[in-house]
Amino acid sequence: MTVKTTFPVRVGLAGFGYWGTKLARNCAEAPGCELVAVCDGDAKRRQAARAQYGAEVFADFDLLVASPGIDAVICATPAEFHAAQAEAALLAGKHVMVEKPLATSVADCDRLLALAEERGLTLMTGHTFLYSPAVEVLEDLITSGELGEVLYCYSQRLSLGAIREDTSAMWDLAPHDISIFLHLLGGVPRMVTAQQFSLIGEKQEDIAMVTMVFPNGAVGHINVSRLDPRKVRELTIVGDRKMAVYDDTDPEMPVRIYDRGVDRDLPTTAGALDEGFGLHQLSLRTGDVHAPQIAGREPLRVEIEDFVTAVVTGAVPRSSGIVGRDVVAVLEAAERSSALGGEPASPERRLSDDPPVRLAS
Amino acid sequence: MTVKTTFPVRVGLAGFGYWGTKLARNCAEAPGCELVAVCDGDAKRRQAARAQYGAEVFADFDLLVASPGIDAVICATPAEFHAAQAEAALLAGKHVMVEKPLATSVADCDRLLALAEERGLTLMTGHTFLYSPAVEVLEDLITSGELGEVLYCYSQRLSLGAIREDTSAMWDLAPHDISIFLHLLGGVPRMVTAQQFSLIGEKQEDIAMVTMVFPNGAVGHINVSRLDPRKVRELTIVGDRKMAVYDDTDPEMPVRIYDRGVDRDLPTTAGALDEGFGLHQLSLRTGDVHAPQIAGREPLRVEIEDFVTAVVTGAVPRSSGIVGRDVVAVLEAAERSSALGGEPASPERRLSDDPPVRLAS
Amino acid sequence: MTVKTTFPVRVGLAGFGYWGTKLARNCAEAPGCELVAVCDGDAKRRQAARAQYGAEVFADFDLLVASPGIDAVICATPAEFHAAQAEAALLAGKHVMVEKPLATSVADCDRLLALAEERGLTLMTGHTFLYSPAVEVLEDLITSGELGEVLYCYSQRLSLGAIREDTSAMWDLAPHDISIFLHLLGGVPRMVTAQQFSLIGEKQEDIAMVTMVFPNGAVGHINVSRLDPRKVRELTIVGDRKMAVYDDTDPEMPVRIYDRGVDRDLPTTAGALDEGFGLHQLSLRTGDVHAPQIAGREPLRVEIEDFVTAVVTGAVPRSSGIVGRDVVAVLEAAERSSALGGEPASPERRLSDDPPVRLAS
Amino acid sequence: MTVKTTFPVRVGLAGFGYWGTKLARNCAEAPGCELVAVCDGDAKRRQAARAQYGAEVFADFDLLVASPGIDAVICATPAEFHAAQAEAALLAGKHVMVEKPLATSVADCDRLLALAEERGLTLMTGHTFLYSPAVEVLEDLITSGELGEVLYCYSQRLSLGAIREDTSAMWDLAPHDISIFLHLLGGVPRMVTAQQFSLIGEKQEDIAMVTMVFPNGAVGHINVSRLDPRKVRELTIVGDRKMAVYDDTDPEMPVRIYDRGVDRDLPTTAGALDEGFGLHQLSLRTGDVHAPQIAGREPLRVEIEDFVTAVVTGAVPRSSGIVGRDVVAVLEAAERSSALGGEPASPERRLSDDPPVRLAS
Repeated sequence: MTVKTTFPVRVGLAGFGYWGTKLARNCAEAPGCELVAVCDGDAKRRQAARAQYGAEVFADFDLLVASPGIDAVICATPAEFHAAQAEAALLAGKHVMVEKPLATSVADCDRLLALAEERGLTLMTGHTFLYSPAVEVLEDLITSGELGEVLYCYSQRLSLGAIREDTSAMWDLAPHDISIFLHLLGGVPRMVTAQQFSLIGEKQEDIAMVTMVFPNGAVGHINVSRLDPRKVRELTIVGDRKMAVYDDTDPEMPVRIYDRGVDRDLPTTAGALDEGFGLHQLSLRTGDVHAPQIAGREPLRVEIEDFVTAVVTGAVPRSSGIVGRDVVAVLEAAERSSALGGEPASPERRLSDDPPVRLAS
Repeated sequence: MTVKTTFPVRVGLAGFGYWGTKLARNCAEAPGCELVAVCDGDAKRRQAARAQYGAEVFADFDLLVASPGIDAVICATPAEFHAAQAEAALLAGKHVMVEKPLATSVADCDRLLALAEERGLTLMTGHTFLYSPAVEVLEDLITSGELGEVLYCYSQRLSLGAIREDTSAMWDLAPHDISIFLHLLGGVPRMVTAQQFSLIGEKQEDIAMVTMVFPNGAVGHINVSRLDPRKVRELTIVGDRKMAVYDDTDPEMPVRIYDRGVDRDLPTTAGALDEGFGLHQLSLRTGDVHAPQIAGREPLRVEIEDFVTAVVTGAVPRSSGIVGRDVVAVLEAAERSSALGGEPASPERRLSDDPPVRLAS
Repeated sequence: MTVKTTFPVRVGLAGFGYWGTKLARNCAEAPGCELVAVCDGDAKRRQAARAQYGAEVFADFDLLVASPGIDAVICATPAEFHAAQAEAALLAGKHVMVEKPLATSVADCDRLLALAEERGLTLMTGHTFLYSPAVEVLEDLITSGELGEVLYCYSQRLSLGAIREDTSAMWDLAPHDISIFLHLLGGVPRMVTAQQFSLIGEKQEDIAMVTMVFPNGAVGHINVSRLDPRKVRELTIVGDRKMAVYDDTDPEMPVRIYDRGVDRDLPTTAGALDEGFGLHQLSLRTGDVHAPQIAGREPLRVEIEDFVTAVVTGAVPRSSGIVGRDVVAVLEAAERSSALGGEPASPERRLSDDPPVRLAS
Repeated sequence: MTVKTTFPVRVGLAGFGYWGTKLARNCAEAPGCELVAVCDGDAKRRQAARAQYGAEVFADFDLLVASPGIDAVICATPAEFHAAQAEAALLAGKHVMVEKPLATSVADCDRLLALAEERGLTLMTGHTFLYSPAVEVLEDLITSGELGEVLYCYSQRLSLGAIREDTSAMWDLAPHDISIFLHLLGGVPRMVTAQQFSLIGEKQEDIAMVTMVFPNGAVGHINVSRLDPRKVRELTIVGDRKMAVYDDTDPEMPVRIYDRGVDRDLPTTAGALDEGFGLHQLSLRTGDVHAPQIAGREPLRVEIEDFVTAVVTGAVPRSSGIVGRDVVAVLEAAERSSALGGEPASPERRLSDDPPVRLAS
């Protein structure tokens, strides 16, 4: 099926709250993109959207989707609405970008993916961290081999945050780290365990610990909390050559590369004779620390540009629908593990191993 | 049974390595304590012990234990020897202090406890952190009610440390945190889950994550690693009134108390009418940070003094044998959970709920 | 002379650059204040000012000042224009707020002050730091006696900053610290020494060290640089009871109060007999550290409100014209000292010691 | 004159206090060195020295110096005794190392230097920081050209320290920084200004600011205080290519190299035509931060080894008598400047510009 996309891409934005206004500004500024319509249930917000961007405004998502002057829809609405809105938009022939998480179940994600593929439309998830310059530096450290083989990643995302009644700390915070881990480690974990606790007795849990084992044996561990005295945003990567720490709260040196590790010395002849072939000695290596300068680019801007490119060229965006689906699959497995007190669970497998590309129209 | 203890207490020390030499210095300096004998397999160390402390030296533990001039034995030997050495010492009528962990199985611990009780001898474990001024401050914050009810404790004990072939990161590092958690939360967890991974392919695991749920619902989480680029020694306590962070690497403000938390506002009448009885609003509270000065006392010195007092008066030391046994019970449960991929496990219950006191002789 | 001030105060803003746009936003938001006109030489900026605030715009300062619909003028223009613009505005019967420094010479400042007093108009300087919540906390610590008598203040304001050809690091950066020191110590230094260096050979100096001795003996020291690898914004106050550090780059604990100092013990009788009456022992005291929560208010907003209050009621604003004049007197003395290689210089005395109040109209 | 030096060098140590005991340990451990005698006025210390090192002990410096079994004398005594003790030792034909400062006046230093040269004896000063691995890294950064031309050095040495009645903060603390600055910048400043203040009204000043201008135009600034709430040990070097910060309290990254600075762009033709030849544009450059690993060597040990080498081979030690003399010359000039309220003063010139080498015997 052929999709006709005008250029510049005319975007309709659903949700003009905290994140929606950021998306709006970036849509307005990104080349090849035009913010033509905004939908929000709040009259004041609609007024603001019209005043600032001259956008057509709607109170109703249905009207936005029905608008013939829109090529693509961006959903910055609560997670519970994502699946239905994305489906409606795809059915109306619009390309879609959905804020993370893509949906609240893998089944929903898979349905959206199938629909997008069938219609030849772009389906993208807003995992903004994949466009962060710091994460790009981490990716380079891995693909260039500087860190060696990645053995372990762990992250902490802690703060005294808004206690939300509509979502748990895990669903609210962990998608960031899961998307980064999947991106850096290049795969979906084969095993997930998780625990969640509601410390203050509310329905939604305030803390979660998630452990993942990836197909290549690498281990990931995520600790999220919205009941912590300090704001912590730290991700550590342990490679078998070097190690790196990404501290998102450090304005001066957000990424530090440590030339530290365990070296496997070659077996000495004596040792080989005495104790068998293949013996080795382990020794610790500590060396310099390097903090590369991190570019000042706004990740959200790069994300919007990736979406525009995907819509226009049919290329698969970095934060594709598949990425969003895999993140939800991990969250769902974590939810199952947590419900069983921490028993291992496996993320649901993708329906197809076909390359997750949209056919160019 | 009556135990005759001379005063000052004459100590025989087994092991004169890194930790043993520290114990020796503190034994020599503590009032009421005399370091009279040292046993170590290494001739140079024996020579050093004799030169520095005028101690009688032995190459063999059996000879040390057989020495009539000794009232108490301190074992600073590898964990695998603890049970047999402590048992021999108790059988020889000596009071015993064993470095952590008390033994490598709960069964061994229970046998030692029974033996000590039967013979009216002190059995103590060297959980030095229980004597750390910072931990004492944390304990005061809890018992005074300043933190409110403790909801959550978590700790990180990470560094690029010696890769030991005789013990895992969990057995090597976690006993510190487990002993602190049990002490602060006043009980043994009813449920433990754990995961351990050997990242560099050695027999012994390099990282471990342990989660505990205590009888009162409080949650504990411990993260240990000997494959980390940075040295991290952090313990966070989340109370329902305030929160505290103990950073053992911060010489200036090791303990910080945050006047932060979630407040439960009383239901408004309107709300009660409209939405049902018992409704409340949650609101975040952020306030001052306070860093109490921490005394400069050496914890090991206080520990030795506690041992001397226990030996002389029959009082139960803070880091009693029961404490050591409970820590091993948690480790053993963690080991079981880890072997099953993270399934919940319960620490073995104490043989008796009798007060863990040594009968005064 | 009676000044008729309408309410709300109608403000004309000169300069719509980096700082001018911030002032505009705060004028628009502050109660009792209306931004009615903006003047800027740049056409695009004028357009932006009109679009965002519906302000009348002028390319020429003279036209702004001549506008009958304006009660007060705020000058956010380069320092070299301050004196002439403020004078023109006062002569036109407008209240005036001038960005720091008030002018580039004490003579100019004194002329402006005399003019403002003669005409019964408010003359204010934009020393924004005096309205910073952190500085208010420091002030409270001093006035409440918690710090004791202030012995010493020093500050560092360092970064790799724009090398400006129109002004030195001292005139650009030190006014902040000088205004804070004068405010906290409640007086004008009797002696100033300073050194300035142009490290990269430009006309304007990149670093400066300024030392001040206040009438009560307190010492102030300021270190500014625009050639430094790190951003440092630190102010330390040494009192004879406690000490405080204000680190403007620390989002978590910007103000720390240290219960540390030197205690003067009472003379012992023995000492008094042996070595004379009045002898004492000095002993160090180290204690807790306390970090009070700092309010999130925007200082510029409070400053604008203070200006409005001053205009309407005739009250003297905190950052009065006298404050601005005293800061320039210190800068001028520092300039003289620096020209003589560091010889002491005295700030020029105020023309009158009369209370620096504007007579209420 | 020929000096006969036995090997190993037999050292007599004057002063067995805090620093003396450290020197003793390093003398005992350094190859080529033997600690044969110790002199201290305190009987307990003498006893300790004999017990630990089997050293001959004296209560009197004169007896130590008269001892025929000693080749070299190390003075770890209060500064006021340095000149007389070093003189006596040189007159007795002993090589001498004196703790910093070498003496309390340049005249004394020059007399000692002349005497050492005349007798062909080593005269060394204990500026231990010159042997610190971190300072060696800084030196490499300069001599390799990595920092470019050094424009500016400044240091802060602040803490709440022992208020000493025998010496000011400047004489106590600044010698460290002065010795480092002279070493790194390779010369004696041509101009010194200083200010000192006694904040708590004692005879000896608690804070000092010292500014130096070196022959090549580089600027040095030192800030010392013993009345500060925090322990600060920081030295910043601003080069015209890169910058470095040495923070002696940071165990993880004590030296940080910042690829930051001001670049001078080549003049554009247009600019050259319009505004004259040689015009250029300045632009800021910010780049990576690098923290080289710093060796764990004990500086005092390297210092002792340098002394032994100097004694045996006649080579000039890094921390030579000339270095000690130059540091005192700067301190004396600073003292003069401070007495005049900050007027510039010049360090007294060396008596001779001859290479400060001891003639090999």
